[in-house]
Amino acid sequence: MQYKDMSADMRGALLTQLQGDYANFQARGLKLDMSRGKPCREQLELSMGLLDASLIARDVTSGGLDTRNYGGPDGLPEARTLFAELLGVDAKNVLVFGNSSLNIMYDLIAQYWTHGVGGSAKPWSQQRAVKFLCPVPGYDRHFAILEHFGIQMLPVPMTEEGPDMRVLGELAADPTVKGMFCVPKYANPTGITFSDDTVRALAALSPAATDFRVIWDNAYCVHDVRAGGEELLEIFAEARKYGHEDHFLEVTSTSKITFPGAGVSVLVASESNLAAIKTRLSVQTIGHDKLNQLRHVRYFGSAAGVYAHMEKHRALLEPKFDAVLAALERNLGALGIAQWTRPRGGYFISLDVPQGCAKRVGELCAEAGVVLTPSGATWPLGIDPLDRNIRIAPTLPPITELETAAELLCLAVKIAALEN
Amino acid sequence: MQYKDMSADMRGALLTQLQGDYANFQARGLKLDMSRGKPCREQLELSMGLLDASLIARDVTSGGLDTRNYGGPDGLPEARTLFAELLGVDAKNVLVFGNSSLNIMYDLIAQYWTHGVGGSAKPWSQQRAVKFLCPVPGYDRHFAILEHFGIQMLPVPMTEEGPDMRVLGELAADPTVKGMFCVPKYANPTGITFSDDTVRALAALSPAATDFRVIWDNAYCVHDVRAGGEELLEIFAEARKYGHEDHFLEVTSTSKITFPGAGVSVLVASESNLAAIKTRLSVQTIGHDKLNQLRHVRYFGSAAGVYAHMEKHRALLEPKFDAVLAALERNLGALGIAQWTRPRGGYFISLDVPQGCAKRVGELCAEAGVVLTPSGATWPLGIDPLDRNIRIAPTLPPITELETAAELLCLAVKIAALEN
Repeated sequence: MQYKDMSADMRGALLTQLQGDYANFQARGLKLDMSRGKPCREQLELSMGLLDASLIARDVTSGGLDTRNYGGPDGLPEARTLFAELLGVDAKNVLVFGNSSLNIMYDLIAQYWTHGVGGSAKPWSQQRAVKFLCPVPGYDRHFAILEHFGIQMLPVPMTEEGPDMRVLGELAADPTVKGMFCVPKYANPTGITFSDDTVRALAALSPAATDFRVIWDNAYCVHDVRAGGEELLEIFAEARKYGHEDHFLEVTSTSKITFPGAGVSVLVASESNLAAIKTRLSVQTIGHDKLNQLRHVRYFGSAAGVYAHMEKHRALLEPKFDAVLAALERNLGALGIAQWTRPRGGYFISLDVPQGCAKRVGELCAEAGVVLTPSGATWPLGIDPLDRNIRIAPTLPPITELETAAELLCLAVKIAALEN
Repeated sequence: MQYKDMSADMRGALLTQLQGDYANFQARGLKLDMSRGKPCREQLELSMGLLDASLIARDVTSGGLDTRNYGGPDGLPEARTLFAELLGVDAKNVLVFGNSSLNIMYDLIAQYWTHGVGGSAKPWSQQRAVKFLCPVPGYDRHFAILEHFGIQMLPVPMTEEGPDMRVLGELAADPTVKGMFCVPKYANPTGITFSDDTVRALAALSPAATDFRVIWDNAYCVHDVRAGGEELLEIFAEARKYGHEDHFLEVTSTSKITFPGAGVSVLVASESNLAAIKTRLSVQTIGHDKLNQLRHVRYFGSAAGVYAHMEKHRALLEPKFDAVLAALERNLGALGIAQWTRPRGGYFISLDVPQGCAKRVGELCAEAGVVLTPSGATWPLGIDPLDRNIRIAPTLPPITELETAAELLCLAVKIAALEN
């Protein structure tokens, strides 16, 4: 029976019963974390072969360069080739960096802020206003970069095909709208992949700003949860049809392929964008950790090696997503109070609860020992105007703990809905 | 006989003879590089034990944290402790970062440019002028960062005790003078170490700017070339006596301890400065490569382990410095046309040739196959106003090649002096 069909008395009685269940949860002294998209220990164990000294020690050179020494700011040629194959782009457009694609993205915005995108456009800091399109729900660390630089954030609703292109197109007619962060495949947190139509529409988009840049955060490019995952149309090939390849900067990393703390990151950009980036890069560093790049290249051998490796991750993650989705369906499926996504890849499930209830759900979970991503985090400035969206990160906890946490979460949703 | 005491005829005859010697060098088809402070292959071999998987694999945790996973933006506690001991500071003031201290320095200037140093001072980009003190000769990559942000560079002559404090003090009375980059120990390129008096004077300095910051690039903190190297007075202890600890930001790295491409870098700062830096850092990255930090900590074990390791570097470098210094003394010692430093550590020898001759020396060397650091590089914007200073980097070439290169360099100095 849906909650909306219940009488006030029924709802009151149910709430009392659920509060009893909740007290039982509290008594268990849980301490579980579903807050961040962190790989679990078993996933980290998959890559321990990466640490084998013989991968590097048998030959420390790459293309004649001693990878132990200074130099090579573009990244090792073999690493560029490997990621070019994974992303379906040309190796000449690929740079391989250090362990953090977030840092690449920060540096891009920082560069555009102080030096502009290149060409005749002024640095963003010297323009009267700078606004960014923000698909919502979205990734809190993207929003944090924009907030740090004082860039105004304009929400664009996510649909099942990606950002709502009608809203996006209207907003992009404002010349102070300078760009967008997005996660086009297995989006954070909805898990949806931009449809071919959406990718083509973004490629074709003619924004009013001449210095418009989309940070195409392809963090989950090879991160299927279901066998036969989704395909994302390659953005640069589409953008080239309109002469718009300068609009896009793609990043990814091996943070969720090998080690989050010790992977390598990747930037893909047009020749013109790369020239501007390399000018800054030559001032900023003598080069990134090439030994770690060499490790990754030798460990995987090829794109096929990466796909085989990701299949092992998938085997660990699918039961975790199943556990959460089963709990949601079992506990909330018939109540008409919540909706959630059923991603085929990525690291998150997006849960929408009744308006005004997300914060309360977070509190109830926290007070019973389960940490969720702070409610509001999926919106700019951490403020979800409808207080509705919750990001569920099922990857880190062991499956039994995850089942417990999911049960508690569902209970909290029911209580919050009835309290409301 | 000094050149100044020669008759014009004598000088002409000598030049003809030297040009013959030079032609012989050219005929040898040399291809030698004395341009950058790069460790040689034998130095890199010293650290191959760092790659041993068992260093990490036996226990991937540090203070309860799985170093493979996300987190730990401050760096591993053990790594902070190790570098605190090496630098004579408190571990709570130490952060351990990725492979590039240059990147730390770039990010500091970028932060001050866009967000200011914290407190009430405006971001440097919003102030009417921003100037930096530049000890000369100095490090080209410091100058490049300042140039990138459009910061005006004011040369301050280096003495044998460090920057000329009289000149520096006068310039610092200008409130638009916001700071200084310096290499206080075994300076690049002079190799001198700031005297205790200089360190104390810098600590005591009361600049007009309230947002004054010195980047204390302690790149060569443990890099002796001679047994019983020089001691640098610890800057924060001195600065604290005047309440000036916020004026200083110290960086170093293991680039020339382990691997230039794959070391770890370190930032030391006051609590107040760290708070501002961590605010930015939390937006910029989820953490640096902690596995590489763990490798370094386990490999060295302690500060004593680092000192023992550096003694092996010293054994490789001392003969190279000797070879260059012997060639300079043998060929130029009696001629009264050149002066050079005799560093007890670091990576460089600074050579002053007759005014107007440095570029010509570089050309002569290049045309005979020996690459020097571009003349002018040791001055802001690459312009040495007296065209006099040459940075010699003796570490990379094998010793026989180095001897050849040094002979050619001396010959080029003589020719340039006589042509002049």
